[in-house]
Amino acid sequence: MAQALRLAERGLYTTQPNPRVGCVIANGEQVVGQGWHQRAGEPHAEVFALREAGERARGATAYVTLEPCAHWGRTPPCADALIAAGVARVVIAAEDPFPQVDGHGIAKLREAGIDVQTGLMRDAAREINIGFFSRIERGRPWVRVKLAMSLDGRTALANGESKWITGEAARADVQRWRARSSAILSGSGTVLADNPHLTVRLDERDEAHAFVPPWRVILDRHLRTPAGSHVLVDGLAPTLLLHAASVSANDRRFERVECATIAERDEALDLAAVLEMLAARDCNEVHVEAGPTLCGALLAQGLVDEVLLYVAPVFLGDSARPLLHLPVLTDMAGRWRMQAIDQRQLGEDLRIRLRPRT
Amino acid sequence: MAQALRLAERGLYTTQPNPRVGCVIANGEQVVGQGWHQRAGEPHAEVFALREAGERARGATAYVTLEPCAHWGRTPPCADALIAAGVARVVIAAEDPFPQVDGHGIAKLREAGIDVQTGLMRDAAREINIGFFSRIERGRPWVRVKLAMSLDGRTALANGESKWITGEAARADVQRWRARSSAILSGSGTVLADNPHLTVRLDERDEAHAFVPPWRVILDRHLRTPAGSHVLVDGLAPTLLLHAASVSANDRRFERVECATIAERDEALDLAAVLEMLAARDCNEVHVEAGPTLCGALLAQGLVDEVLLYVAPVFLGDSARPLLHLPVLTDMAGRWRMQAIDQRQLGEDLRIRLRPRT
Repeated sequence: MAQALRLAERGLYTTQPNPRVGCVIANGEQVVGQGWHQRAGEPHAEVFALREAGERARGATAYVTLEPCAHWGRTPPCADALIAAGVARVVIAAEDPFPQVDGHGIAKLREAGIDVQTGLMRDAAREINIGFFSRIERGRPWVRVKLAMSLDGRTALANGESKWITGEAARADVQRWRARSSAILSGSGTVLADNPHLTVRLDERDEAHAFVPPWRVILDRHLRTPAGSHVLVDGLAPTLLLHAASVSANDRRFERVECATIAERDEALDLAAVLEMLAARDCNEVHVEAGPTLCGALLAQGLVDEVLLYVAPVFLGDSARPLLHLPVLTDMAGRWRMQAIDQRQLGEDLRIRLRPRT
Repeated sequence: MAQALRLAERGLYTTQPNPRVGCVIANGEQVVGQGWHQRAGEPHAEVFALREAGERARGATAYVTLEPCAHWGRTPPCADALIAAGVARVVIAAEDPFPQVDGHGIAKLREAGIDVQTGLMRDAAREINIGFFSRIERGRPWVRVKLAMSLDGRTALANGESKWITGEAARADVQRWRARSSAILSGSGTVLADNPHLTVRLDERDEAHAFVPPWRVILDRHLRTPAGSHVLVDGLAPTLLLHAASVSANDRRFERVECATIAERDEALDLAAVLEMLAARDCNEVHVEAGPTLCGALLAQGLVDEVLLYVAPVFLGDSARPLLHLPVLTDMAGRWRMQAIDQRQLGEDLRIRLRPRT
């Protein structure tokens, strides 16, 4: 199963909107087939592994990181393929909550007399598809917020200068996190200040190079995004501009992007509604790169699932710009508690990955 | 020498104002004597090691972490003791810059026909006495600033609440850093806000328990420290109150503490003069626990040698209090660049040790 998970990881940047899945078929001590899902519309992991195994699949054990599908999607059901190949036993890491699977795959296999076991390395299998599970089970994507700051929690000088707070290794790392995401979420304030492309820039030799370009999703309540902004015109990735119903996007500025309205709540776009819409559009992992207002609002509303905090070894002082705009606390009990799940050095910078303490 | 350094470390909390020194005497393959300096006024490392070695010191090699002294201080010169014991060879990690030693120890040994070698593990030997070397070579103590903050660089809520930002393990760690210091430096603002004791509180079983109580040094330009403040009256450690010459400390408030005047510079006490005074009073390592103004001023004036940054895994938001008050930067080139020399987890908190990038 560990090997099947490593295979699943090879699809990290390419299976969107599908989950990353790996499969290993073993006959006795011998591995006779391996496969992983590569791209939506192309065969699933089991099919690749069965092809490699051929006749040796008969009586063998298949290790699959996610419950085999039982329905006709863009490809035939994998449960049927495993049955047809004469596999004797199927070991599944995680059950698939997708409505058209959701136990049906397991039931189908068992009805065919196959010995099915579930739960081996389930946590790791869920982790690799954390966005997919979030979308199916919670109806919202996994929201990962990227923040880059100085040692004293500052993101830019008072005059706005922020170039190169963090170093090259940290910036390359950010590109890989963007590449595995279904969407990159930002706000019109960031577009106005920095005019970013919000695309993935990776060296051709990078493991993540063959990514599916993430949507660029811009929250722009009052349609302030200026004509000619990169996200509106560069055509490098699809852009979705979300705005309030009180303004009309019927404007030549937006002719190359998609616009949609979102309900308002507390003088801002309703962020929960934004995430619901993105889930409905098959977004699994949403990567947020935005200013202190949007990032703070997501955190304050309990909508942040993970924080990637890049810390550069510099001090900027209290005149520099703050990391997060959050409601004023009057009691330490209200603090936003996090848990570090990973820390590493990237060049001179430190990266701390955090999740809310539950 | 590695063993001699470990012995030296046993004096980490007790030798003040003397350096920490360890000595191992080896005859052939066999260690015949070991010693370390324990307290000022008591015998030096070499003396303990020679006592243990007795006759076996004749013809042996002595490994000493610091050049043996050549002068009569509170104890007789160690160079003489090594000569009298008939040691054949002395290996010294670091030369002692103390004016009354400064090569005289080495010269004395060589004149007596002893083979002397220097520089083995010199960096490690200097590191353990970094404050002593700083005081003798630069005329100022090693200044170590302790800061505790949230992930977003905040030290307290807007209303001042700051209790328990960091956890128990981090707070215990701070006590050991205090214990190895010659002085704990703070400002009257911190005394007014928190009325701290600024003493070392350690469990009796703690390795650092037998420390020399550090001076409490309070910068109080206008003598604002209120009557009855712990640092003025608790008698738990000596207190030195530094103020401007324009105000008089001839006040019953201060009858249990020592007061001294410091020149003013840029509407504040001259911090370089403060450090000079502390060096003149034999302070090796100065531990700073103060507010954003004093810590920021030390950093901005290039007087910080090390930062102990404790980071609690919480967000507090931009209304909370900042870490460091620093001059406004207009160009990123002016940022205060640091280098992380050590990172570790302490309970839920992270401790990053940093030194200015040279």
